[in-house]
Amino acid sequence: MSDLDKLFCPKSVAIVGASKNPKKIGYELVSNILAGGYEGKLFPVNPEGADVMGLKSFTSVKLIPGDVDLAVIAVPAVYVADVIEDCGQKGIKSLIVISSGFKEVGNTELEDKILSIVRKYGMRMLGPNVFGLYYAPSRMNATFGLSRVFPGNIAFITQSGALGIAMMGWTNLYHIGVSAVISMGNKADIEESDMLDYLTGDEMTKAVLIYIEGAKDGRRLMASLKGSTLKKPVIILKSGRTEKGASAAASHTGSLAGSDKVYDAAFKQSGALRAYDFAQAFDWAKLMTLQPPPQNENCLIITNGGGVGVMTTDACEESGVTIWPLPDDLQSEFKKLMPVFGNFKNPVDLTGQAYEESYSKSLELAFKDPRIGSIIVLYCQTAITDPVAIAKSIIDTCESQHCDKPLVASFIGGQQCDEAMRKLDERAIPAYPIPERAVSALASYYRWKRYTDRLEEKSAQS
Amino acid sequence: MSDLDKLFCPKSVAIVGASKNPKKIGYELVSNILAGGYEGKLFPVNPEGADVMGLKSFTSVKLIPGDVDLAVIAVPAVYVADVIEDCGQKGIKSLIVISSGFKEVGNTELEDKILSIVRKYGMRMLGPNVFGLYYAPSRMNATFGLSRVFPGNIAFITQSGALGIAMMGWTNLYHIGVSAVISMGNKADIEESDMLDYLTGDEMTKAVLIYIEGAKDGRRLMASLKGSTLKKPVIILKSGRTEKGASAAASHTGSLAGSDKVYDAAFKQSGALRAYDFAQAFDWAKLMTLQPPPQNENCLIITNGGGVGVMTTDACEESGVTIWPLPDDLQSEFKKLMPVFGNFKNPVDLTGQAYEESYSKSLELAFKDPRIGSIIVLYCQTAITDPVAIAKSIIDTCESQHCDKPLVASFIGGQQCDEAMRKLDERAIPAYPIPERAVSALASYYRWKRYTDRLEEKSAQS
Repeated sequence: MSDLDKLFCPKSVAIVGASKNPKKIGYELVSNILAGGYEGKLFPVNPEGADVMGLKSFTSVKLIPGDVDLAVIAVPAVYVADVIEDCGQKGIKSLIVISSGFKEVGNTELEDKILSIVRKYGMRMLGPNVFGLYYAPSRMNATFGLSRVFPGNIAFITQSGALGIAMMGWTNLYHIGVSAVISMGNKADIEESDMLDYLTGDEMTKAVLIYIEGAKDGRRLMASLKGSTLKKPVIILKSGRTEKGASAAASHTGSLAGSDKVYDAAFKQSGALRAYDFAQAFDWAKLMTLQPPPQNENCLIITNGGGVGVMTTDACEESGVTIWPLPDDLQSEFKKLMPVFGNFKNPVDLTGQAYEESYSKSLELAFKDPRIGSIIVLYCQTAITDPVAIAKSIIDTCESQHCDKPLVASFIGGQQCDEAMRKLDERAIPAYPIPERAVSALASYYRWKRYTDRLEEKSAQS
Repeated sequence: MSDLDKLFCPKSVAIVGASKNPKKIGYELVSNILAGGYEGKLFPVNPEGADVMGLKSFTSVKLIPGDVDLAVIAVPAVYVADVIEDCGQKGIKSLIVISSGFKEVGNTELEDKILSIVRKYGMRMLGPNVFGLYYAPSRMNATFGLSRVFPGNIAFITQSGALGIAMMGWTNLYHIGVSAVISMGNKADIEESDMLDYLTGDEMTKAVLIYIEGAKDGRRLMASLKGSTLKKPVIILKSGRTEKGASAAASHTGSLAGSDKVYDAAFKQSGALRAYDFAQAFDWAKLMTLQPPPQNENCLIITNGGGVGVMTTDACEESGVTIWPLPDDLQSEFKKLMPVFGNFKNPVDLTGQAYEESYSKSLELAFKDPRIGSIIVLYCQTAITDPVAIAKSIIDTCESQHCDKPLVASFIGGQQCDEAMRKLDERAIPAYPIPERAVSALASYYRWKRYTDRLEEKSAQS
């Protein structure tokens, strides 16, 4: 059992600083935990012992009857040490310290003080200066962020609180499912490595996404990354890449961004995938949590528009995805599925006259042929075809064929294409509004696959 | 008067091949022209003389009473030469040839034949093998693409028909306004250069966006680009960058993609801005059609989240946008507008506690100070602030200050952020779902501005 189990899966939670006042963080915390459907016991704690949202409150954690697994602390900085001392005496082993006013404002002494109490009692602490922790399997939204999060299989670890909260909204808007949202804050005790180690064994998490400005202990992070990336893809968004960016990071989280080249090399060596903006990071994670990894290097493009086929080919070539030159037997099969002015090479251009059947039959061919390792399916809106119907035919074909290779889609056009892509996403076929984003996701999956394959080869040889 | 005036602003249009059958292109054409609100005269032409959508029809263009400015031809390839001959005899000077079955399928002879008739009568022809032409000032949607297009100030010229039609949908979905959508097809007569020359003088068009796989006459294109880019930004999406992409382009439009390096150098020399995907191209054009160019090199970032401030700084530095180190006087002004843990350097971090007033007062400072040349405003969703209210305060400040420098925005979060961004877009403040896209647009505007400034300097010296 990991010592973080009680942080992620507590049977009982105390909210210290719980408030009746809807403008207070201590109110948001209780409200979000309740709204999220958390099923354990919940104990508000505040100096008045005033009930919060119908829950009986206590004036101290020490007065709570029975065990408490986790304390979430949101009281002014000056009271935090005393609260933690109480938690220690109560036997609470996990803490989330929301309160700010520590190292991030230069108050290193106070941060050291609370850490020493944490150590004395053998507790683990997330924070201080965090917005909290969301974990889907526990249905626990112990954050003062947004009340609704779209559950799924991406764990998101963030050193930026504002970004983390904003991303909770993003998950709803773009239907991107997360297993966990973790605010790292000052990282006095728990740091990214701890979280990575824990999430590597977490069944709900199929890919990990980290926003980081600077590592506390680079070597440890690298070791944890190496352990995680063997099991699941880890995507890192490391900012402070430029001199001015690094200086902004230093004023923001006090992080020493360090030489970007060193980080870059460390990420590569440890098999982590580096993304350059968060849309890209989530694009990648979406594919990796919805689809199996590529079966081999041969990628096939199916399209109804020549121009987007050309653009997609460019993007593939530039990012290391191999457009497989189709052998004659497959060319003649595809030829049967298109008008005379179609193109049966790769990209396979079914032309603007491609209806549902052309797509489903082409996909069937592609699914069945073991020489094809991954598939990109493109659709450009036309006046005569229905994007939603085509999306449905793609879904049906995919489900009836029990496809074991990754399929990514891009539907280009208006409202109906948007609707079609939503349907694809819902049925685990990741869709992107431009083909280049689909390619970028696929290329990153290939990079991860090649890394793990290389390691397997090495260990087989030795 | 340009010889393309009658193509863009015809007082009367004949649709040859107009049909009653909703499955035919000849029906779509009439239906789209009517739906678009075209106010000139419209004459369907078909062998039966059958009325189409209540319009009196003719069996030949020669039988139409009075002048006809433009003929749109959608009959099988074998009849096209005869129709064009009739048009020539009727005195029609502009043609859009929708019909396919020419050079794109190897039928060069037939294409040469129709071109010779076009030349004989001194006509101008768009096509063959095009989906048509949309021009907002004429309210003329002479295409078989989508019936609705979002009007605005971007002219879109495309060698890919499927992409063009899909983009008509895209304009509606993302509220991106276009002045023209032009399908280039086989470019037997009219090519991109002709369109550029025309659009350079077009008041409605504030930026031109071209998708091209290969130029027919590279030198002429370069000359036209040089002329246009002096007046307005021209964005080029040139595919076939890679070997396999070029080979796909050759099977698609028969274009010899040519050495990408040569194209790249030619675009740079002629001041054209090269984009790498169409989302990027439209992102850039959106900023350029909504906001004035940068006033000087100093860019200011205003944010409520440190992390996105760092990421945005990285993106600026990497793309040549200068994050201006704020002088002391401005630092102390900004300091007054934020809590003690805010950051009054650049990026100015108003913190997650920034409400409407913090944004409007910071923007006022930024607008008024002539040392600042461009502004990026960022918002991360929080549980306590309202993105839509903040968007409104930004709009109000912008409008009351009559801002002469470009402002770009990025609101990161859920549904409400999406709504806030839509409001910003509607009031001509371009908003993007991630800061990196805002920065990319601003950086491209800077590149264009520097190019025109250099040319002005040169001509002043000589």
